Amino acid sequence: MTTATANPAQELIERHRPTLERALEAIRTREFFSQYPESIKAQPEGAVEAGRQAFESYLGKPFPIEVPGADGTVSTETSPYGLPLDISYPRAGVDAALTAARDAMRAWRDAGAEARAAVCVEIIDRLHARTVEIAYACMHTSGQAFGMAFQAGGPHAQDRALEAVAYAYAEMSRHAPTARWEKPQGKRGPLVMEKTFTVVPRGVALVIGCNTFPTWNSYPGLFASLATGNAVLVKPHPKAVLPLAISVAAARDVLAEAGFDPNLITLVAEQPGEKIAAELALRPEVKIIDFTGSSAFGEWLEENARQAQVYTEKAGVNTIVIDSTDDYTGMLNNVAFSLSLYTGQMCTAPQDLLIPRDGITADGERKSFDEMTRDLAGAVDALLGDEKRAVEILGAVVSDAVVGRIDRAATLGDVVLPSRSVDHPAFPGATVRTPTIVAVDAADQQAYGEECFGPVAFAVATDSTEQSIDLFRAVVGEKGALTASIYSTDERVLNAMEDAAQEVGVALSCNLTGGVYVNQSAAFSDFHGTGANAAANAALTDGAYVAGRFRVVQSRRHG
Amino acid sequence: MTTATANPAQELIERHRPTLERALEAIRTREFFSQYPESIKAQPEGAVEAGRQAFESYLGKPFPIEVPGADGTVSTETSPYGLPLDISYPRAGVDAALTAARDAMRAWRDAGAEARAAVCVEIIDRLHARTVEIAYACMHTSGQAFGMAFQAGGPHAQDRALEAVAYAYAEMSRHAPTARWEKPQGKRGPLVMEKTFTVVPRGVALVIGCNTFPTWNSYPGLFASLATGNAVLVKPHPKAVLPLAISVAAARDVLAEAGFDPNLITLVAEQPGEKIAAELALRPEVKIIDFTGSSAFGEWLEENARQAQVYTEKAGVNTIVIDSTDDYTGMLNNVAFSLSLYTGQMCTAPQDLLIPRDGITADGERKSFDEMTRDLAGAVDALLGDEKRAVEILGAVVSDAVVGRIDRAATLGDVVLPSRSVDHPAFPGATVRTPTIVAVDAADQQAYGEECFGPVAFAVATDSTEQSIDLFRAVVGEKGALTASIYSTDERVLNAMEDAAQEVGVALSCNLTGGVYVNQSAAFSDFHGTGANAAANAALTDGAYVAGRFRVVQSRRHG
Repeated sequence: MTTATANPAQELIERHRPTLERALEAIRTREFFSQYPESIKAQPEGAVEAGRQAFESYLGKPFPIEVPGADGTVSTETSPYGLPLDISYPRAGVDAALTAARDAMRAWRDAGAEARAAVCVEIIDRLHARTVEIAYACMHTSGQAFGMAFQAGGPHAQDRALEAVAYAYAEMSRHAPTARWEKPQGKRGPLVMEKTFTVVPRGVALVIGCNTFPTWNSYPGLFASLATGNAVLVKPHPKAVLPLAISVAAARDVLAEAGFDPNLITLVAEQPGEKIAAELALRPEVKIIDFTGSSAFGEWLEENARQAQVYTEKAGVNTIVIDSTDDYTGMLNNVAFSLSLYTGQMCTAPQDLLIPRDGITADGERKSFDEMTRDLAGAVDALLGDEKRAVEILGAVVSDAVVGRIDRAATLGDVVLPSRSVDHPAFPGATVRTPTIVAVDAADQQAYGEECFGPVAFAVATDSTEQSIDLFRAVVGEKGALTASIYSTDERVLNAMEDAAQEVGVALSCNLTGGVYVNQSAAFSDFHGTGANAAANAALTDGAYVAGRFRVVQSRRHG
Repeated sequence: MTTATANPAQELIERHRPTLERALEAIRTREFFSQYPESIKAQPEGAVEAGRQAFESYLGKPFPIEVPGADGTVSTETSPYGLPLDISYPRAGVDAALTAARDAMRAWRDAGAEARAAVCVEIIDRLHARTVEIAYACMHTSGQAFGMAFQAGGPHAQDRALEAVAYAYAEMSRHAPTARWEKPQGKRGPLVMEKTFTVVPRGVALVIGCNTFPTWNSYPGLFASLATGNAVLVKPHPKAVLPLAISVAAARDVLAEAGFDPNLITLVAEQPGEKIAAELALRPEVKIIDFTGSSAFGEWLEENARQAQVYTEKAGVNTIVIDSTDDYTGMLNNVAFSLSLYTGQMCTAPQDLLIPRDGITADGERKSFDEMTRDLAGAVDALLGDEKRAVEILGAVVSDAVVGRIDRAATLGDVVLPSRSVDHPAFPGATVRTPTIVAVDAADQQAYGEECFGPVAFAVATDSTEQSIDLFRAVVGEKGALTASIYSTDERVLNAMEDAAQEVGVALSCNLTGGVYVNQSAAFSDFHGTGANAAANAALTDGAYVAGRFRVVQSRRHG
């Protein structure tokens, strides 16, 4: 017996319609909205303990997930906190994964936009239910402190995922699925055609994850592609497999329960150096690629994966122009936190602080360049003075390369604040470093003019705020940026900076002195990246991010 | 004294709001809508004569238009009807045109989406007022008969332009321009940010026109780019400059009257062989390219113009699968017209007719392959038997290459219908040719498996309709197509063809037997191209066609 709700997707459509509608409203108004509570206190009783146990249950074992054409296992992760992980993952066969992905797509296409969106929301709900275990997985791969791993790897990533689903759904449903077209013909009867418009997927989508934000940076592309009818291959960073393995496994469960082929999503784990991402990226079956990582590989993808729509987030030079402030302490504390959070290992962390060499006006008084940078160093010291608190902000260093960059930065100018090592009270094996601030001159563009990923800030002495804005325009115009920020009490300066930001295409924050940081972008309201500068060719999430992931094929008949 | 309507753009916003709203509604419902009447009878009294005189006033003279950095003149057009044109155009300096374009953009960006859309609608209205002169210009460059040049070059192109403006406006206004973001913080007061979201253009847009539909194929990209804030360089085909010169001149007039820099749009005419399109396409300032023409240059642009968003319409193999019909005469007449209209020189004209070698069922009777193709030849003969009527359908051959292809086609199989020359009663210098139908076997894929642009149809004998659909899938899957069509009385066959069409990504027409032809696509309802096969990487017009033409740059401050 078949009833209207016998189709699992139908039940999901009805269950998740209110969520989807709220999300659709939020992406229009850009007002505050969050579907998934960011507070750990909102977790159900026992969830934290259960999540920890779930995480620990993976350690030292093969991870339970099926992949097409399984061909051995890979085990590539080490925790930045020194915890042994020793998790192994089945290695998918490239050809088998592509074939399975293609075979899975037809029924998914035929299910229609609403069913696909509802299934995606159900997946995200399941991910939310597993937030704690994913948080531990993010913590022990990215090196984020637990609190940050919980928020950024959990609810914030889930909100970004829902946002991508909402955009995809809005785009797929922006016109009627069928139309009766009646063209008047004067005295003769009208010409009548019945038309149907079918959303068809582009093909197989490839998501290439990064080490620092395995879920946050992967979910938008993953869900945008899946919701628009494509099958997705998820290629995690070899050092951050677990968060995506859990996510893919959850998605496969939901797809199967809803009557779809779980091979609509496949984990493609690899040994470092196998270059499976590059191999897959050039396969004709792969029509969409989402990548977060180095500019070198991102640009290689853009240049070479010609058969695919390529969405990249790469490196940039995030910049703060400091002109004047009427809340000196607020400014110093805000910038100090931005530099410290996750050891500056956020793609949105500021790097260049452009400050007039003759100082700034702060709370009505002059502060020299040296005073201001010393005060900023003091604010960082104060923030990170207590070791227990410091490690909850800093987390752990994700790779040796970061330490190398800290050391090298000290040779590039005058060290205003040296980086120091912090002992982690709970994880003696963790490498924890505080940020360094290095003063350089505007002329030393080779020092501050490109990304130095990690906890390195350059305090750049400029001739004037005007020169600061010119330098911002020049450096970001060439190298790109994900964030920019300005401090000024002068509306003309703010306007000039807004104009420069529009010209070089970077999102701007003005006079942040409270609980919002330039590093942060809020789902449903802030666009992450713009697609208008060298740091990223796409924004999370806008119409351009989803519109190219499907096509519309019409059929028409006489009515 | 300044009043609310002292700003010319403000007055245009109010005047054109109803038009824009109707267009926005039409692109959602996909129901019949046309802003610009296609009937010449709807023209005001005297408009036809005035338009003819306006056209004639250009002959033998320098065309009145300003271009940045003028550097000599070019004169490159010849009428396919043999009329001497001898119009010369100023040759723009490439650097000067790019500089002027960039300089013009800032005020245009700052005017906002609504003002830009309104100015674009005003331009299209002015083009409509000049439809007759543009029709003559299209006729004497493309070779279309006057009636077709009037409709396709005039109102149909204008409707496509308005459709592109509507999509661009919808995309730019899909979210609020400002937002107040209030994030609850439990017992503490909320975090509040005031945000603004500014649409910024990508840069300079390049439109590369074609010889056969100078306005229809150029307007969508032109207006999509202009409405989204970009400046546009219009590079016409050297043999079809006049229709775009008139259009660009009209646009410059409106822009200047509305208080904007007319160099937001520039005509870039060239000598054949100058390769200015290729030069411009690689300039870093050029961020958007719209191209209609050969697959070779389209693919070159896609491969090489890496700094730009590239939208191409190229060649394809348009196909009709003939299985069965219950309106044999209607089918034959419909296909005969599709083959004949503008000498098969439409990018949407059918080329391959896939027919079972043991014939079809027509009106309940069997018709052998030979009978059916002979009957189709008879329908073409009947349609084109009267010379005066024939030239109004056929128009003139646009280039010698088309004649060469007709001659070559005769060597590829059995000629069922030979092409014949028709004397044009009014233009003795015109080359007018009727279509040829050549019967080939399914095995002769080298004959029918690629585009043979012009009035050449291949009647391909297949083992069965099943094989026909398989061949459709294979040939169009590889070479692409802009249109496909099927005749069948069997719902299962129609479904199988719809499925194949979705798979290879081509729009399908089913059982056309009346006054709608597979060559035709109606603005606001039919998508022209899909972007899902090799014939075009974009559709006219959908969200994907406009979303990449601008970016959103936000700025946020504490509220």
